[in-house]
Amino acid sequence: MVSIGTISLNDKYIQSFVEKDELTALQDFVESAHKKIHEGTGAGADYLGWLNWPSTMDDAEVSRIEETALKLSKDVDVLIVIGIGGSYLGAKAVQDLLSPAFGRTGLEVVYAGQHISGRYLEELLAYIEGKKVAVNVISKSGTTTEPAIAFRKLKAWMYEAYGEQEAASRIIVTTDESAGALRKTADEAGYVSFVIPGDIGGRYSVLTPVGLLPLAAAGVDIRQLLSGAKQAEADLISTNLEENAAYAYAAYRQVLNARGYSTEVMASFEPAMAGMNEWWKQLFGESEGKQGKGIFPASVIYSTDLHSLGQYLQNGRRMLFETMVSFTEDQQQSQIPFDEEDGDGLNYLVDKTLHEVNQQALNATAMAHHDGGVPILQLEIPKLDAHHTGYLLYFFMKACAMSAYLSGVNPFDQPGVEQYKQNMFQLLGKPGYEK
Amino acid sequence: MVSIGTISLNDKYIQSFVEKDELTALQDFVESAHKKIHEGTGAGADYLGWLNWPSTMDDAEVSRIEETALKLSKDVDVLIVIGIGGSYLGAKAVQDLLSPAFGRTGLEVVYAGQHISGRYLEELLAYIEGKKVAVNVISKSGTTTEPAIAFRKLKAWMYEAYGEQEAASRIIVTTDESAGALRKTADEAGYVSFVIPGDIGGRYSVLTPVGLLPLAAAGVDIRQLLSGAKQAEADLISTNLEENAAYAYAAYRQVLNARGYSTEVMASFEPAMAGMNEWWKQLFGESEGKQGKGIFPASVIYSTDLHSLGQYLQNGRRMLFETMVSFTEDQQQSQIPFDEEDGDGLNYLVDKTLHEVNQQALNATAMAHHDGGVPILQLEIPKLDAHHTGYLLYFFMKACAMSAYLSGVNPFDQPGVEQYKQNMFQLLGKPGYEK
Repeated sequence: MVSIGTISLNDKYIQSFVEKDELTALQDFVESAHKKIHEGTGAGADYLGWLNWPSTMDDAEVSRIEETALKLSKDVDVLIVIGIGGSYLGAKAVQDLLSPAFGRTGLEVVYAGQHISGRYLEELLAYIEGKKVAVNVISKSGTTTEPAIAFRKLKAWMYEAYGEQEAASRIIVTTDESAGALRKTADEAGYVSFVIPGDIGGRYSVLTPVGLLPLAAAGVDIRQLLSGAKQAEADLISTNLEENAAYAYAAYRQVLNARGYSTEVMASFEPAMAGMNEWWKQLFGESEGKQGKGIFPASVIYSTDLHSLGQYLQNGRRMLFETMVSFTEDQQQSQIPFDEEDGDGLNYLVDKTLHEVNQQALNATAMAHHDGGVPILQLEIPKLDAHHTGYLLYFFMKACAMSAYLSGVNPFDQPGVEQYKQNMFQLLGKPGYEK
Repeated sequence: MVSIGTISLNDKYIQSFVEKDELTALQDFVESAHKKIHEGTGAGADYLGWLNWPSTMDDAEVSRIEETALKLSKDVDVLIVIGIGGSYLGAKAVQDLLSPAFGRTGLEVVYAGQHISGRYLEELLAYIEGKKVAVNVISKSGTTTEPAIAFRKLKAWMYEAYGEQEAASRIIVTTDESAGALRKTADEAGYVSFVIPGDIGGRYSVLTPVGLLPLAAAGVDIRQLLSGAKQAEADLISTNLEENAAYAYAAYRQVLNARGYSTEVMASFEPAMAGMNEWWKQLFGESEGKQGKGIFPASVIYSTDLHSLGQYLQNGRRMLFETMVSFTEDQQQSQIPFDEEDGDGLNYLVDKTLHEVNQQALNATAMAHHDGGVPILQLEIPKLDAHHTGYLLYFFMKACAMSAYLSGVNPFDQPGVEQYKQNMFQLLGKPGYEK
């Protein structure tokens, strides 16, 4: 159990799969990789801006984001956030985790430009008919095909609905400080704009204006989110694997990878974590899946998927390990009511809360899968709120940088993402790509 | 290309990974497995009720489902469907695929009992306050922990809100014809009820009242859904691998599995397929993941995940194959508008629709991933509507039965699902499980 700091790594269900000295054998490499991260001596060192971001972000910029969000919540019915990849997954993940499952506390925030579905976009246009709408378009270059198409369609709709001047007042741009097509457009049209720091890549950008503006609009307390990340930045500094749960998580991943556990299943017992699982898949999959290497990232929501992929986890091919995430505090105290007839046989649970039953489902599953041959890592988070979510985001980013460096790859590039684009430009006859 | 029937299997991006005779070598086994399916000579033969279900379902029962849904749509604001596993994933999948991405055409249908999150359930209870609510509880036994807890809480809420008599009129039960706790409760309390056929397992039950009632309530044309499945039942009958795309899909899966492609990534370029991917994961994962065997089922939505897991697919560890699903007809004709300034450089696309761009993204991705070392199967469906969805559901069920028999396992049991339950009952002190 590595439990210094806020998130604990419980490794009791991994001991029978690895030897004690396998982890300690990585200690030197961890120290070397730590230097790459903190001294910028490794590949991709131009993209380390996320490392000290929580403690150094300009407070005035946080206030400007909050003021912009407050103004939006007064002026509009729906905020459409246009972005893909790192300009989409982070905000969506945190919004899904911290907003109520039904209804909402902030402005209605929806997404576009995260794919090329004409059906989705036409249904969105039908939905916003007659509503007061604003757009936050997020793109470093402004020329990425998916968000550019969505922005064109929505801009045309807004110019038609509101006229040029009012439409411009309803468009907020998040892009590079000085370069790129979107910066040029924003400056010319006088759109309100925010900056994507040049030294922070998409999948590490959730705590910048990329994530913060949509989240503030959706009613998330972004100062709490940042305070949690700042706490993580301070906590996760030791190179000692017994004192840094993020590094221990990274090191265990590589120990398991070397033993042939080629797929990691991120498992949460809280359904609102589904979006976080997608964000985590981009972070680790894009950082590590290169040069023929990398742990394949998959995810499940339990107990839902215990009645689905659970069968495979218990008895299928043994190339999987699981990382179980849980929130330990019982924040709802939701009781199971007594029933006179007890037809369902649940009266033995009436002195328990759903949280207690859910926690025992977790313990039961960890035991069962362990006994079935699946190594289990458990990340235990005290509470589900904005502060701890910020902590968790930073925890995973730091663990990912460490894990990728340990596996010998650059944690910050994504060379393979270009290939389908080149083919697509050629098939579509984009000027300069005809053959 | 195997293109007899409605769904075509395009195998051009698999030819460089397998030899022609690898597929034909399975022809005899396919005929033997076909007998197991059609003559009931294999393991799990008691659960073949799904095979002829589309052509034999009682028409009067379809009408009764439609009438019940119509009555609900007049009487209530929200229908809460309580179920887990096969009593949840099918209805959710088809609802997500066929309902608009924003707004809705039918009654509001939401889900409960698919996990043990107290937060989710308390937020649902807050959401329905003051609304007119009905419940459809779906469980063969009535004692599965997750739905039983949700039903208890919602029943208590309804008895409080409406009184005993009216609450009873708002509860619809879908359960076994004669056995189990829920059947007993339904008969005693006089709930309207529907039957889960005894010879159809959960993951094969979407076309029975399990899926049909929630879907009819949500505004899905269930007669079209059934007509598509009936067409598939008639089409997918040949044992010749060149004439049966479902069997060819199953056989290719096992050829790839034998070559060490241990993970299948189901990829769709239509975001509304996300729920169908989850249904597919249960179908194949639970049917095949046993005895240390099975292809691990994962999924992506493109082009969203081309900016996430796309990097891994292109350059990561080579143990993956991909199955790409696409709908070929352009049903929206959504145009990309001209822009005088062309800052985003998209004017070369103004004579194209989003569907055309999306289809070229698919072609571009298939080429790129193929060239990166990933075998690609492509399932081409003419149109996205209820008829073709019914066809697709049956296509996958028949392919799954074939694939599981080819790999030597029982397609219809799920022995591993019990193990976490046993542990959980013991940890919770359920009478009879104390130690």
